[in-house]
Amino acid sequence: MTTNITDEKISRLEELFAGLPGLGPRSASRIVAELLTTRRQDAQRLCQDLSETLASVHHCPRCHTLTTLPMCSVCADEARDKSVVCVVETPADLQAIEASVAYKGGYFVLMGRVNPLQAVGPEELGVDTLLGRIDKEPIDEVVIATSYTPEGETTAHLLAGVLKKHKPQLKVTRLARGLPSGVEIEYTDAATIASAVAGRR
Amino acid sequence: MTTNITDEKISRLEELFAGLPGLGPRSASRIVAELLTTRRQDAQRLCQDLSETLASVHHCPRCHTLTTLPMCSVCADEARDKSVVCVVETPADLQAIEASVAYKGGYFVLMGRVNPLQAVGPEELGVDTLLGRIDKEPIDEVVIATSYTPEGETTAHLLAGVLKKHKPQLKVTRLARGLPSGVEIEYTDAATIASAVAGRR
Repeated sequence: MTTNITDEKISRLEELFAGLPGLGPRSASRIVAELLTTRRQDAQRLCQDLSETLASVHHCPRCHTLTTLPMCSVCADEARDKSVVCVVETPADLQAIEASVAYKGGYFVLMGRVNPLQAVGPEELGVDTLLGRIDKEPIDEVVIATSYTPEGETTAHLLAGVLKKHKPQLKVTRLARGLPSGVEIEYTDAATIASAVAGRR
Repeated sequence: MTTNITDEKISRLEELFAGLPGLGPRSASRIVAELLTTRRQDAQRLCQDLSETLASVHHCPRCHTLTTLPMCSVCADEARDKSVVCVVETPADLQAIEASVAYKGGYFVLMGRVNPLQAVGPEELGVDTLLGRIDKEPIDEVVIATSYTPEGETTAHLLAGVLKKHKPQLKVTRLARGLPSGVEIEYTDAATIASAVAGRR
């Protein structure tokens, strides 16, 4: 069933949707059918909002997250703690930390992670902007909040090296590892238990 | 994490995507992030194709499926068997039957199913267009290919009644029920086995 055999334009639209992350041919064809019939208003808003946002979106000059404002709302917020910067991989990670309401400092978004095979090192992730901020702003601590995956750990390791070399008295920390909320110890993997034991307090 | 807390325009876009069938807040925010960064070209094509298709899409005057052409490509195809019409609920069902390459007749798309609670009866599903076709065209058989769900069965039942009343000599059939390909009898539900036994040949 995949794409529309009876109409080329609709088929092209279905293919575009099917290529988006998390969607396949079936969900794409359902989405297109709804957008073209019962949800034409949503479809019109989608066209308009997407083209407007595409035209105005850019990276925040201070933290590199995606924004349509001259400076993102976190960076523009005078009430944020200027002494600490949290380094994350993506804008979605920034959102997740903001949603926890546990952190009141600034951010720096790498927009990726170190990938030696694609020649993505700390420079390609905009580390120079971060070092410039460390020179100009009263930053005491950098929290490295990259993923606990091999690539995320490598990124954290390289980044910590660059930061320590640039400013030896800087405090470089990593988010605590341990057991997530709502889990039973019995069903937790060994690596998580090991890090929870090591970090006990 | 859900929607973007740092930028209203991006957040609105994420909400629009999150409201589409099969998508949630997380997949929506991933889609938006990709469209605004690594896949800007796809995003531009999406805007353009969607607004063009929205402007030109309509129901085929003969079979009611969605099309951007004056008449859908199945209806416009002179080589199709004009003596048989297959009635389906949605354009996706039409695609599925076309993909089977087992049917060479015409179609009629109800664009829904009978729903007494929402006052959707055969008239609301465009049965008059179908009856008009039966009067004008040399149609001998109508295959009712609505879903094997309670609503689909009700639709089939009511439709068969209307068709038989309109033209008593018309052959009204239903797609065969039975075991689907690639399944083991042991794991098949009782209703499917019962219909396969009743329809054995």
